[in-house]
Amino acid sequence: METTREWQIDAVGPDRELTIGERRLEPVSGNKVLVRTEAVSLNFRDRLVMESGMGLPLQFPFVAASDMAGIVEAVGPEVTRFKPGDRVISTFSPDWIDGRGLGDARTPPYKTRGGFYPGVLSQYSVLSEEWYSRAPDTLDAAQASTLPCAGLTAWFALIERGGLKAGDKVVMEGTGGVALFGLQIAKAHGAEVFITSGSGEKLERALALGADHAINRHEGDWVEQLYQLTDGYGADHVLEIVGGPHLGEALRAVAINGRISVIGVLEGFEVSGPAGPLLLKAPVVQGISVGHRRALEDLVRAIDQIGLKPVIDKRYAFDEFPQALDHLYRGPFGKVVVEF
Amino acid sequence: METTREWQIDAVGPDRELTIGERRLEPVSGNKVLVRTEAVSLNFRDRLVMESGMGLPLQFPFVAASDMAGIVEAVGPEVTRFKPGDRVISTFSPDWIDGRGLGDARTPPYKTRGGFYPGVLSQYSVLSEEWYSRAPDTLDAAQASTLPCAGLTAWFALIERGGLKAGDKVVMEGTGGVALFGLQIAKAHGAEVFITSGSGEKLERALALGADHAINRHEGDWVEQLYQLTDGYGADHVLEIVGGPHLGEALRAVAINGRISVIGVLEGFEVSGPAGPLLLKAPVVQGISVGHRRALEDLVRAIDQIGLKPVIDKRYAFDEFPQALDHLYRGPFGKVVVEF
Amino acid sequence: METTREWQIDAVGPDRELTIGERRLEPVSGNKVLVRTEAVSLNFRDRLVMESGMGLPLQFPFVAASDMAGIVEAVGPEVTRFKPGDRVISTFSPDWIDGRGLGDARTPPYKTRGGFYPGVLSQYSVLSEEWYSRAPDTLDAAQASTLPCAGLTAWFALIERGGLKAGDKVVMEGTGGVALFGLQIAKAHGAEVFITSGSGEKLERALALGADHAINRHEGDWVEQLYQLTDGYGADHVLEIVGGPHLGEALRAVAINGRISVIGVLEGFEVSGPAGPLLLKAPVVQGISVGHRRALEDLVRAIDQIGLKPVIDKRYAFDEFPQALDHLYRGPFGKVVVEF
Amino acid sequence: METTREWQIDAVGPDRELTIGERRLEPVSGNKVLVRTEAVSLNFRDRLVMESGMGLPLQFPFVAASDMAGIVEAVGPEVTRFKPGDRVISTFSPDWIDGRGLGDARTPPYKTRGGFYPGVLSQYSVLSEEWYSRAPDTLDAAQASTLPCAGLTAWFALIERGGLKAGDKVVMEGTGGVALFGLQIAKAHGAEVFITSGSGEKLERALALGADHAINRHEGDWVEQLYQLTDGYGADHVLEIVGGPHLGEALRAVAINGRISVIGVLEGFEVSGPAGPLLLKAPVVQGISVGHRRALEDLVRAIDQIGLKPVIDKRYAFDEFPQALDHLYRGPFGKVVVEF
Repeated sequence: METTREWQIDAVGPDRELTIGERRLEPVSGNKVLVRTEAVSLNFRDRLVMESGMGLPLQFPFVAASDMAGIVEAVGPEVTRFKPGDRVISTFSPDWIDGRGLGDARTPPYKTRGGFYPGVLSQYSVLSEEWYSRAPDTLDAAQASTLPCAGLTAWFALIERGGLKAGDKVVMEGTGGVALFGLQIAKAHGAEVFITSGSGEKLERALALGADHAINRHEGDWVEQLYQLTDGYGADHVLEIVGGPHLGEALRAVAINGRISVIGVLEGFEVSGPAGPLLLKAPVVQGISVGHRRALEDLVRAIDQIGLKPVIDKRYAFDEFPQALDHLYRGPFGKVVVEF
Repeated sequence: METTREWQIDAVGPDRELTIGERRLEPVSGNKVLVRTEAVSLNFRDRLVMESGMGLPLQFPFVAASDMAGIVEAVGPEVTRFKPGDRVISTFSPDWIDGRGLGDARTPPYKTRGGFYPGVLSQYSVLSEEWYSRAPDTLDAAQASTLPCAGLTAWFALIERGGLKAGDKVVMEGTGGVALFGLQIAKAHGAEVFITSGSGEKLERALALGADHAINRHEGDWVEQLYQLTDGYGADHVLEIVGGPHLGEALRAVAINGRISVIGVLEGFEVSGPAGPLLLKAPVVQGISVGHRRALEDLVRAIDQIGLKPVIDKRYAFDEFPQALDHLYRGPFGKVVVEF
Repeated sequence: METTREWQIDAVGPDRELTIGERRLEPVSGNKVLVRTEAVSLNFRDRLVMESGMGLPLQFPFVAASDMAGIVEAVGPEVTRFKPGDRVISTFSPDWIDGRGLGDARTPPYKTRGGFYPGVLSQYSVLSEEWYSRAPDTLDAAQASTLPCAGLTAWFALIERGGLKAGDKVVMEGTGGVALFGLQIAKAHGAEVFITSGSGEKLERALALGADHAINRHEGDWVEQLYQLTDGYGADHVLEIVGGPHLGEALRAVAINGRISVIGVLEGFEVSGPAGPLLLKAPVVQGISVGHRRALEDLVRAIDQIGLKPVIDKRYAFDEFPQALDHLYRGPFGKVVVEF
Repeated sequence: METTREWQIDAVGPDRELTIGERRLEPVSGNKVLVRTEAVSLNFRDRLVMESGMGLPLQFPFVAASDMAGIVEAVGPEVTRFKPGDRVISTFSPDWIDGRGLGDARTPPYKTRGGFYPGVLSQYSVLSEEWYSRAPDTLDAAQASTLPCAGLTAWFALIERGGLKAGDKVVMEGTGGVALFGLQIAKAHGAEVFITSGSGEKLERALALGADHAINRHEGDWVEQLYQLTDGYGADHVLEIVGGPHLGEALRAVAINGRISVIGVLEGFEVSGPAGPLLLKAPVVQGISVGHRRALEDLVRAIDQIGLKPVIDKRYAFDEFPQALDHLYRGPFGKVVVEF
């Protein structure tokens, strides 16, 4: 394997051109592994990076996307964690193995795949074995490719940093990739799940997936609906995906000493809300920046144990990447995946 | 003891009249204790309650203030925790003994002294023994009276919910009661303390009290000053006392995976800030609603061990309560206390 | 209701006589509630108390047992948490509501029902409302009566103090009441459960109940079997119920940084084990003394959410209490309950 | 620099010969750094390894000891954390950077310096930059060399895994290296420190170093002395260094819900104690296997902030290593260091 085909852009911007290019692969030396990509899962963030660059020092031609699953085809002489034939998935922040996050206050962590580091839309790559986790045995490649960002974000928020337990009441906002992972992970821990959405049809699908309660945002104040469903108790955990001033709704919804995981920025980059419930109910509001590899490995193990199947709205072929990207704009139910 | 003198108001409002009234005391039965008040410490919140009622179901004539120290003079037959002669301090939320907070999402906890429950500006009171903690042996009554709200707020934020350790970098905003307690508590745990203020003179006093670094808000962006003092690291913990949009500054200042305790509302009841650092640095933002009695008892024990002396800006006599209240408007350095 | 029938003993000892006696009830005043007992669940500890007194200052005639479910029949004027008709369960340590445990190093906590405090084998009792939690809506009285000690012990070990999550590997020793609750609670959180027992028949029943793996102690070193089933990983959590030198087996079985909950003393009151794995694997070994009321309320909420049905080996009538007690000696599969 | 002098042994055993040998250094390539050793601190464990091998796959000639401080003299082209002239200290488990420990239940972690990996008694070494932490600015090389094992063990037990806070009562057993670090770290966090020893002279020195209470084991049951000093409360944290059946004493001494860190094996490799206090007081007993690099970096930062100076009983020259080793047998007060 000397070269790889990959989806590239030459500049960021709303009209950037997507082209399939070719690139030489480096030799498989030291602790490097050659991995053949089988599937790539797209995130809303991939669009933001291609459209704006998000202030990152991108290298051009730039390869987008952070989440993939593939097969180890060859290993360098110092590799100890994998062997040829092993099924692997990428990690979002390759340098963050466990514990405290990287970077500092002035320069927050930004060294992720599909950003500072090249993305995963290549048919092959040669990278350190440390950049991969094993894939679950019970998922196909397309399903496995959804874990590194969307799956881990939900897991990190609810479990690694959330300590969710049976009987807890959890609100997921919407039916995107992170919200549906949140639903499935919370149900696997015995929690009571409330899904909010403006689409009755999507709420039906969420109920079919196991949600306990569907709250239609168009049928009145959703927090009041939550109060009525919980006899005023509120939610032990809110996955706050809407963003912006919607944090205020999460603060109204959260239970005494509950937890809000701030994940999304769909409705704005300035979060805001009333001080009253933040002070009186004394919740924890935690920012979530995906998570570390050890937690991803925990998630992989959990998936094999509980039989969780990620929700894929649609699978596209490698050549259909532009169409897959368009799908992201239409608010998918779960994930959009490109199969190689 | 059949009656008590006390400071009362008959209505809330900016022009409410303060008068000294008399009230009958109930008998010292069951688990009740008769306590003679020696000192009352005032909080900014006491003004808010008297001026606006803060939406609380106050009983008139209303007695304000939440923090006192006194002496047990008599005990009911079921009392086990105290005996006559014991020195005690009040608790802010009398029903919250330990663990999870009270109330629910719809009706956050609000049953505190000097609000839903009568305040402490009475010369005597007869109340359940559960409403008191022992006072530190090493403080006089005026000093001890500062602990139930201001002292416990700083302790709860930094220690009970903050797990502060030696070497941590902590920012205290301003030089009010909570900030100075924060300074002293943080120093007693080996932390590095940064104080922000717009007053050079107050910063000098904070340095004399043990702060490691003084940051003058009028001498340029204080967060940039913090970055320079910490080589970009930021602060492991920020006591966010300013409130409102100032949360955004705290989010800029906080270190990777650091912690912001939201305590104050001096500059607004709507908190806001940029999503970027909240997501990328993944800090915890925790609302603080004072704390429970068990933590107050921990604080009392710590004070006797470390020899912390609360900072009292000025002591007033019982009859001078109106002047003491006025002092609160002028931004005291530490606490304002009324001695009985 | 002026009197109650109850099972009494007049002295401790292996041959103590069990008799049904009558006792006057006190008036339903203050915060007291009159509760009619519907079911009592027995624990191995009840036998220990009746046979040896366990060093406790028992009051004679002594009423044994700590776990019951019943109906509130009348409430005192200060009662706020319950009303007549409410279904309730007892709490094991009535004074321990939340947070830190009671007592001190010299005098550990011992004020439990069926010990320092009278037990629950009475048809009626008049006690503080604080001594009760609501019963789950989804359980009958016999099932609900198994929660206060056996159910809460497993929950407190695995969830409140254990933070169990999906994919974790958990070992339950045996098939007694705590072990089977552990199995059901762990499965409800997505964990992988290993049951050890010397009885093939009981292992079959545990598999039918949802255990992932059955390990027969008579078919070779059970820890070696665990190693083989987990590819050497071991167990994230071991419920160490056997006691005595068996702690050494738990230390061999536990995973890196795993957790061992010491619960039982079936094989001895002196725990022991090798220092090597304790030092090298750095696990947490935590003693479990049942738990507080807040955690019991969490468990009740979880049970209604996940539909957990406690395993009752056999139900006896009130008059058959002696036979029920005998059943405890024969190693029941799950719980033994007396219905009133 | 092409070769290094180092202390070697050719076989393990009580009579193994210590010789100074010479070894070729590998080139300073990749992420490797050349470090010149300035000081090595000895641990009791170093003796155990040289006498018994502790079951480790040692490579001969074997170089002992795990803790050193030195200067970076050259760096490979991929090194990013250090530059020539930087002062560094070694890490005990070079591969454990943060978070969960390495290894598994069957094969606990054992890849430490001076064991599976070569020790530090070499004048030069060429190793990955990941194997080092920066040294504190405020310590000389001999002092800094005491941190990687003894200092970190005390810090990891009390702070990283202990969450110590002001007012907590902490027992340190003896006056060895870990115990004195424990004393100094605990005092820097405002704790109340109790030191036990059989030597009145060593207790005097511990009091001079800041201990609050000295308990002479030869003047009656030390736990009873602790009870009397604490009015029965006991100790929030016990550093259990004696080992073997002495765990039973720690279990008697520990406060309700307190913590015991098992660190030492001076009196036996089989720990044991009564189940009663373990069950009733529900403490955490945690094994401590030194700690990870991130915690060592936290300790280094703390030391510079609080001005902690490690206690060195005696400094030896490089050629005096055998005499330094002999000193370990005589129970040093603090650490024994070899200066290069």
